[in-house]
Amino acid sequence: RSGEMAKLTQLIDNEVFRAYATYTTIVLLKMMLMSLITAYFRITRKAFVNPEDTASFCKGENAKKYLRTDPDVERVRRGHLNDLENIVPFLGIGLLYALSGPELYTALLHFRIFAGARITHTFAYLIPLPQPSRGLSWAAGYAVTISMAYKVLKTALYL
Amino acid sequence: RSGEMAKLTQLIDNEVFRAYATYTTIVLLKMMLMSLITAYFRITRKAFVNPEDTASFCKGENAKKYLRTDPDVERVRRGHLNDLENIVPFLGIGLLYALSGPELYTALLHFRIFAGARITHTFAYLIPLPQPSRGLSWAAGYAVTISMAYKVLKTALYL
Amino acid sequence: RSGEMAKLTQLIDNEVFRAYATYTTIVLLKMMLMSLITAYFRITRKAFVNPEDTASFCKGENAKKYLRTDPDVERVRRGHLNDLENIVPFLGIGLLYALSGPELYTALLHFRIFAGARITHTFAYLIPLPQPSRGLSWAAGYAVTISMAYKVLKTALYL
Repeated sequence: RSGEMAKLTQLIDNEVFRAYATYTTIVLLKMMLMSLITAYFRITRKAFVNPEDTASFCKGENAKKYLRTDPDVERVRRGHLNDLENIVPFLGIGLLYALSGPELYTALLHFRIFAGARITHTFAYLIPLPQPSRGLSWAAGYAVTISMAYKVLKTALYL
Repeated sequence: RSGEMAKLTQLIDNEVFRAYATYTTIVLLKMMLMSLITAYFRITRKAFVNPEDTASFCKGENAKKYLRTDPDVERVRRGHLNDLENIVPFLGIGLLYALSGPELYTALLHFRIFAGARITHTFAYLIPLPQPSRGLSWAAGYAVTISMAYKVLKTALYL
Repeated sequence: RSGEMAKLTQLIDNEVFRAYATYTTIVLLKMMLMSLITAYFRITRKAFVNPEDTASFCKGENAKKYLRTDPDVERVRRGHLNDLENIVPFLGIGLLYALSGPELYTALLHFRIFAGARITHTFAYLIPLPQPSRGLSWAAGYAVTISMAYKVLKTALYL
């Protein structure tokens, strides 16, 4: 048992893998934060989508007026979906990239740009900042993911 | 070749990793089930979104009346999206957590609560059960994921 | 350090794992392409959702007419969401499957069918091809994922 455990721990001891673990956890926690922001806006704007969600504070016909969309809620939800669309590729391609033996310096550069880009993207979406703030931060994360995918395919290609 | 294979098999022989593999597969299969439930409601409620989907059973102008939204279909779709938003973080953070060397007992506790919470969440959403059933089951899965993220960052932090 | 690195590189040297890395990267890049196609249709159809996105080419009240939904944009977005719903399970279950020690021939068969099915699904959705093209390509990717999940549970089950 302890031999196996040591082997697994070696993976998490590798610096590139630790960097991947750190930045992946950060961007996934950031994505999870979108759920809380959505809930905050749904409650403060009183804009719900499920009838059972309004039943706690309002009974009868009156509750129906809270079953509506709100621009702020919808904005957070779009940011959340954009996170899913971009963080899922990072999760998969980033793991394979971390296992493909990149230089630590290069790997850190990729991970830091991605995490910075997604955090910037969230601020640009929620404040909102004028374009091209959101567009550029999206593009930075996208480009870094493509760069990692290129390294993975160059190292591991097996069709 | 067989030396490498043994090394890989050792990963899947580790009990924490096997538990992660089991519970991840269960929650991903549960998420995939949402596609079938959506298809079931689209067909029984005759509520489609793509014109080519109605062409098989209905021709011409008459087909347009089946291009509509249905409350039951939309409810399943919201449950499906909520799965994506919560199971993707579990997939990534759970993998890193399993590699960070947790106690088997603690790891099993995390994985079981998460899987139980997501299955309860699905029932709470689809029946639907009165709140706070859905809210609490969502929060349980969320809290467990945060707890695993804390362990990952404590073990592997490399910024 | 170099001993650890060698250990990690051994993972990426394993042929089944290299095949997983290759096909996962391909389907994730394909999914990322949906973002570019959405952007292309939003710009050519002038159909935006965020007010700040129209400000660059159009000022004042006139800009509001470009805040609208467009059938082509919505179609690409549905294809993108369907990718997320199906590629996320492949990402997780496929990784565990690759680590469960399958035969190289069998693993390649699974990965190739999945990648082929998702590429076909995208063409079937965007052209669009008459049904059951889209339905069958969706079902092929779904069936292959279930088959991999069965192998994972058979090899690793630890409840």
